[in-house]
Amino acid sequence: MKCQDYSLNRQTERENLNLNPLQRGGVLPPESRQALYEFSDGYSVCDYCAGRLDEISKPSINSFLEDMARFIGADYARTVHGAREGKFAVMHALCRPGDTVVMDGNAHYTSHLAAERNGLNIVEVPSSDDPEYRINAEGYRETLDELNDMGEDVSLVLLTHVDGNYGNVTDAQAIGKVAHDAGIPFLLNCAYSMGRMPIDAKRWNVDFVVGSGHKSMAASGPIGILGVQEEWADLILKRSSLHQVKELEMLGCTSRGAPIATLMASLPHIIHRVNKWDVEVEKSRYFVSEMEKIGGVRQIGVRPTEHDLVRFETPFFHRIADKHPRKGFYLYEELKKRNIVGIKRGQTQWFKCSVYGYSQEQVHYIANSFAEIATKYKEMAD
Amino acid sequence: MKCQDYSLNRQTERENLNLNPLQRGGVLPPESRQALYEFSDGYSVCDYCAGRLDEISKPSINSFLEDMARFIGADYARTVHGAREGKFAVMHALCRPGDTVVMDGNAHYTSHLAAERNGLNIVEVPSSDDPEYRINAEGYRETLDELNDMGEDVSLVLLTHVDGNYGNVTDAQAIGKVAHDAGIPFLLNCAYSMGRMPIDAKRWNVDFVVGSGHKSMAASGPIGILGVQEEWADLILKRSSLHQVKELEMLGCTSRGAPIATLMASLPHIIHRVNKWDVEVEKSRYFVSEMEKIGGVRQIGVRPTEHDLVRFETPFFHRIADKHPRKGFYLYEELKKRNIVGIKRGQTQWFKCSVYGYSQEQVHYIANSFAEIATKYKEMAD
Repeated sequence: MKCQDYSLNRQTERENLNLNPLQRGGVLPPESRQALYEFSDGYSVCDYCAGRLDEISKPSINSFLEDMARFIGADYARTVHGAREGKFAVMHALCRPGDTVVMDGNAHYTSHLAAERNGLNIVEVPSSDDPEYRINAEGYRETLDELNDMGEDVSLVLLTHVDGNYGNVTDAQAIGKVAHDAGIPFLLNCAYSMGRMPIDAKRWNVDFVVGSGHKSMAASGPIGILGVQEEWADLILKRSSLHQVKELEMLGCTSRGAPIATLMASLPHIIHRVNKWDVEVEKSRYFVSEMEKIGGVRQIGVRPTEHDLVRFETPFFHRIADKHPRKGFYLYEELKKRNIVGIKRGQTQWFKCSVYGYSQEQVHYIANSFAEIATKYKEMAD
Repeated sequence: MKCQDYSLNRQTERENLNLNPLQRGGVLPPESRQALYEFSDGYSVCDYCAGRLDEISKPSINSFLEDMARFIGADYARTVHGAREGKFAVMHALCRPGDTVVMDGNAHYTSHLAAERNGLNIVEVPSSDDPEYRINAEGYRETLDELNDMGEDVSLVLLTHVDGNYGNVTDAQAIGKVAHDAGIPFLLNCAYSMGRMPIDAKRWNVDFVVGSGHKSMAASGPIGILGVQEEWADLILKRSSLHQVKELEMLGCTSRGAPIATLMASLPHIIHRVNKWDVEVEKSRYFVSEMEKIGGVRQIGVRPTEHDLVRFETPFFHRIADKHPRKGFYLYEELKKRNIVGIKRGQTQWFKCSVYGYSQEQVHYIANSFAEIATKYKEMAD
């Protein structure tokens, strides 16, 4: 049989300035590209396995997991295939079908799916209204109190540390305390924070923490990190009754190949970069302030932004689309001419973007490009 | 904090002749190394996602999955993180805790773990005695009859198409018929066959089939294939009630990164190579016959071998270890001097190996190297 053409190139996204927030934190540093070269084949990290991925000493996955646990403030760390698979594993080990999990109204769809696949009921803590969509500890306390009054047991409290719609950074420590005051274990989803900003699971009252290698830890997907505190290790990392050495929720081994090699190579890089998180936030705020100089462009979510993922409402650019001969495609095309990609083709009413990891000069260039396009078509926006 | 040294190189395994059966089928062809370069960063395949990984058209994951489904004789194909994750997903969608699954006595430990994690009871169909360890349809029929007589319902019949201990190739079609005659769905684990030898799920009465990209499909791990027939698609690929577009057992999306790009690039290569499977089997038989010229070396499992994974009992090499100053390490060290790796350090009583993908000249060189070592130390074996 003959295969179709799969268009296996990514030149556009690799060679231009890519503003897609999903892609900013996963770019590999050179040392991780080297690791990918070394470990590209099949089961590459398994040459010296004696039965447990997390105990392999060549390459030193065991040392890496020790370092990773320390980096995030957890007693144990394991690689999983991504944040969602980590959340599923925690819920699967901890909850029974029909149990209730409480999560924020800004939770990622994968938190819903992890719960649904486990047959759990989801109760949401609502965010504040438009335009902030803020999640706070008081909301969690009220929701847990209400459930308690109704005699409803809650098995798990989940918080999205930084959500993927507004880039709102929540007060994990305060919400962790609310969960613990109610005697309920606390799972923190750090897909948009671990590897970008400092995480301290222990100090934040976090029992289980998940992160995403491809989203925020400069690794090839799919890979994630699951951190577990001592108190829960026996449950979450319980062994198979049939194969004593194997951890059941990991199905024995998880990241058997290239992505773990890239994450290992990237750990020094991400340890370094999280210490410069305040510089990234400053860059992001500068970018927002420049964008908002275009009338009819407004950052929504908590202000000033505390994260690189920012969401703009852009009625100005949308009005142009009504009159422009290329309709909504003009914005994508004008940006592309300026070597900027990552805003979806045809999208002009609002968009999410990020300048994470770009230099101050690049951020200036990007903001200036939007301003240029705004000036070029401003008559169409009237 | 400072990271430990993770020894992130694999030069020994990359640059020598590696006989580890786990590693033979996962070696990337050049076009897949190119794909890895293109798609190394983070969520690289997700630039043009409209909500479903399997429907992405750039790169053409949708076309790839159509081709893959055709290649294995399934109505639908999805990528999963590996064969084990595919087995877990099928059992999770199909069975309830306490259900019974019947599987062969040569089943991989991950089949046990997938069942155990789902709370299922495992009933094994025993293999024949040493040295063949053969699994046959009659054994399945007897086991199912016995369970039926006891009034025990069986939710799933699982067969390891080629096991990882002896490389025995089973008669999937006959065992699939036994399962269907009993009205029970049939799951075929093709981790050691899909990508090495032709698979025809439909003709073989297979309802669900799993394969391993890193083990046998020339892909970077972790990645696997799950094939599902039409009759079961609604159940196994059911959508989330909360996010209509997302498939629940996939947690929305699975292979969001580099490994799927390598598997896509490798599909033409593996389509080509499965058509030369008989050449590989001939090479393997030649290798066995050369090895057995050393007295005290015997291939166990079904003979003549029908697969590249072969297991040898090697009392000859073990007797040498008793007297050799380097004890059991001598064999590894003598092979290494000859640029051959993949037999565990210290192992001399028996070993598994494979010459899959090597040229006739390389196979001759490998067999000759064992013969040389045998001659060199034959007095110690007396």
